[in-house]
Amino acid sequence: MHTYAIGIDIGATNTVIGLVRNDGQIVGKETLPTQIYTETKSYIHDIVEAIRKVMKDCKVEAIERVGIGSPNSSYETGCIEENTVNLRIKERIPICKMITEELGVPAALDNDANAAALGELVYGGAKGMSNFIVYTLGTGVGSGIVIDGKVLRGHRGFAGELGHVIVDPHGRKCGCGRVGCLETYAAAASICRNYLEAHAEMTGSEPTEEQKNITCKHVGELAAQGDKAAIAAYDKAAYWLGFALANAVAFSEPEGIFLFGGPTQVGDILMKPLKKYFEEQLLFLYKGKVLVELSHLPSNDAAILGAAALQ
Amino acid sequence: MHTYAIGIDIGATNTVIGLVRNDGQIVGKETLPTQIYTETKSYIHDIVEAIRKVMKDCKVEAIERVGIGSPNSSYETGCIEENTVNLRIKERIPICKMITEELGVPAALDNDANAAALGELVYGGAKGMSNFIVYTLGTGVGSGIVIDGKVLRGHRGFAGELGHVIVDPHGRKCGCGRVGCLETYAAAASICRNYLEAHAEMTGSEPTEEQKNITCKHVGELAAQGDKAAIAAYDKAAYWLGFALANAVAFSEPEGIFLFGGPTQVGDILMKPLKKYFEEQLLFLYKGKVLVELSHLPSNDAAILGAAALQ
Repeated sequence: MHTYAIGIDIGATNTVIGLVRNDGQIVGKETLPTQIYTETKSYIHDIVEAIRKVMKDCKVEAIERVGIGSPNSSYETGCIEENTVNLRIKERIPICKMITEELGVPAALDNDANAAALGELVYGGAKGMSNFIVYTLGTGVGSGIVIDGKVLRGHRGFAGELGHVIVDPHGRKCGCGRVGCLETYAAAASICRNYLEAHAEMTGSEPTEEQKNITCKHVGELAAQGDKAAIAAYDKAAYWLGFALANAVAFSEPEGIFLFGGPTQVGDILMKPLKKYFEEQLLFLYKGKVLVELSHLPSNDAAILGAAALQ
Repeated sequence: MHTYAIGIDIGATNTVIGLVRNDGQIVGKETLPTQIYTETKSYIHDIVEAIRKVMKDCKVEAIERVGIGSPNSSYETGCIEENTVNLRIKERIPICKMITEELGVPAALDNDANAAALGELVYGGAKGMSNFIVYTLGTGVGSGIVIDGKVLRGHRGFAGELGHVIVDPHGRKCGCGRVGCLETYAAAASICRNYLEAHAEMTGSEPTEEQKNITCKHVGELAAQGDKAAIAAYDKAAYWLGFALANAVAFSEPEGIFLFGGPTQVGDILMKPLKKYFEEQLLFLYKGKVLVELSHLPSNDAAILGAAALQ
């Protein structure tokens, strides 16, 4: 007997509503253009209508819960906070309360890294694990930490900022105002910087304007073609990720660590050196005992699956 | 109405049995010389007799639990493992089971860092906190991490090795076989090394044989007298502790962090620079929000209080 949940991914362009079966299959999807909404009431109205439509289309009569993944969100209050950059609605949105009132099921809201962690737990590679970490690589580096089967939230809800662990006190300046955060080596733009530095070092020449605007995806393609500077760029990200992951193990001794997000789609180009550096830098107690893997969630639908796992 | 627990501190020299009131007062104590015991049966027999004696002497009729702090102990099994260095009994000792059989109350066993954390929770500065960390400074650097009011144990029971977080990948060689662990800067012997290095740098001369054998306690005394090399030795420990603590906050966002053990007894000589470096290196989200303090447990009886808090 299958059960169902709704996962909502609120992005700057689209708000995607997915109907997710308990085995992780997305059986239906609706999309709303996020930027047309300037008022909370009509936004929530259309989300609720989209949920009803996708349920009807798929002949699903009952859902267990609704989960929403959104930036600038508060798990505690169930509200999207004021002045969220990606929305034209600038007031605080009590989205969980409003959806529950309409549909009579529980609703939960969280940021994308915690949603990714719960998605991995419910539908992905962390099934059956009660202690694991997901690192999300993208514009920044985020993390969702699960302890005893629950997302670790911290004293005021700000636990799990593992992209801002300082790995090299003499390293690169970070957007957070400090120096040497993991994010400065392993976020998408940081991998581009790794590439430009490696390229300059290997060729002795300054990068062209075109090279300066390279994307992480393109660095990944070059690496797949055997470009040495591109491979070195991922190797540097892998080194500092391996280092940071090994230190994280000394904290919570997870059963597994999963890597998620665009920059991980190069697969072994990142994961092979990462696993090597990770094992080299682990304390003897942990060597060979902690799984490090790519996320098992399908990259296109991971955000919906993560949201659907929230509760 | 007071309640009571027994805390047992198993040390190489003495096995100390304390009767602890729920307000943290140690109302009675018995001491057994650890090294006279070569057999499990007589060791446990004498521990049980000592518990009965201290209860009788203090006119306490009932205890809620017995807690035992011991190196080489397994919380999971309640056994002191085989070949414990500090004991002449070399077989595995099912101490919890044997004590419970004799006294009819639950017994729990753990290592000293976890005991220190629970002691802080039940009798010390972490009362009412559900998320905090205790760093224990001594021969090594250990840690006990509390999340949701419970000691964080990890997948196989090895969580919380925060003395072996690598803080400086280009740093000192550690006893664990790796390089740059926090322990290499902040354990007692490491503070002595900090002193010898600072002294050599400041005077330009090699240390004398007497200086080479200096203890951490003596470095602390020199620092209290204003010795610049000794102050620099604690400043270096404080720098790397501040750095490691700031990174730990990005993991679990604790409400407080407590420092425990011999090297912390210098007080402000360590704590003042530590707090400064800690705040400087915290991510903006956490600045000014995390308490860093000396343990509130009385240093002489902390091990007994920690043990009594185990359950």
